[in-house]
Amino acid sequence: MSQATKKRGLSKRPKQAKILVIEDNRDHWNLIEKAMKECFVEVEPVWAENSQQALAYLEDCLLVGQGLPLFILLDLYLPEREDGWKLLEQIRSKKTPIDLLPIVVLSSSVYDEDITESYDRGITSYLVKPSDFKDWISSFQALKEYWVDTVALPDLNYRY
Amino acid sequence: MSQATKKRGLSKRPKQAKILVIEDNRDHWNLIEKAMKECFVEVEPVWAENSQQALAYLEDCLLVGQGLPLFILLDLYLPEREDGWKLLEQIRSKKTPIDLLPIVVLSSSVYDEDITESYDRGITSYLVKPSDFKDWISSFQALKEYWVDTVALPDLNYRY
Repeated sequence: MSQATKKRGLSKRPKQAKILVIEDNRDHWNLIEKAMKECFVEVEPVWAENSQQALAYLEDCLLVGQGLPLFILLDLYLPEREDGWKLLEQIRSKKTPIDLLPIVVLSSSVYDEDITESYDRGITSYLVKPSDFKDWISSFQALKEYWVDTVALPDLNYRY
Repeated sequence: MSQATKKRGLSKRPKQAKILVIEDNRDHWNLIEKAMKECFVEVEPVWAENSQQALAYLEDCLLVGQGLPLFILLDLYLPEREDGWKLLEQIRSKKTPIDLLPIVVLSSSVYDEDITESYDRGITSYLVKPSDFKDWISSFQALKEYWVDTVALPDLNYRY
């Protein structure tokens, strides 16, 4: 790999970037999809309704050689918080590069225990689901400006 | 602890919140401090020039009962990247709650190896140092909107 290719840093996003949304509530998925379409340009949200679908999708990304998502939005209560934590553990114990994906919890729960335990178990950050659509938009705007426009994400092809 | 107290979620920030900045280059520290003062209101940047100062500061926060910082900005090359990674490992192996602090690398390096390895070793995200001050401001604005205004941080008193 040439130095020039290795130094791409922020500019190496796939043309049709994806974000994996793991959400068991169809109404919340509809809200998330709507907010994402409003805030994220050229980023496609992919919906997984449960842990099995999410894990299968991530494995498929590697198998068929399509890019992994930029990051994951994970509902915690799927339907119990233990289901969300189990899925988190499964993703974090997958082979590289799946284990490196940033995982942002998106949950209605504002309980300190859920928030703190989730960090302790390896999430990247925790976003409380807003109560009205205006706030969904401002949260997703901040999410997009931070993860898509500002930070450098891991190069998920680096270790192939 | 009452349900009402436990449900504080986003609203429990200390009055004078701090962000720990670990940076061995005084010119970069001056830039960071200036950009933070412009973007972060009521958040005080605390400077550690090396790993020893950073670790001592974090331990002191617990000893004297002052709050831990909201998160850490970590220069990677201190002066070698191995120094940054060693400090990262030391913080992540500290006792809770120090190990839960979000750690954002702030580095001039745009090399995929530095970025990807840093995620692999447990950073929260990676921010490439901008080349001009206007871009420092927009990066710090996104940093502030995400970590201070949008996400719920771990409750660092939760396990005392």
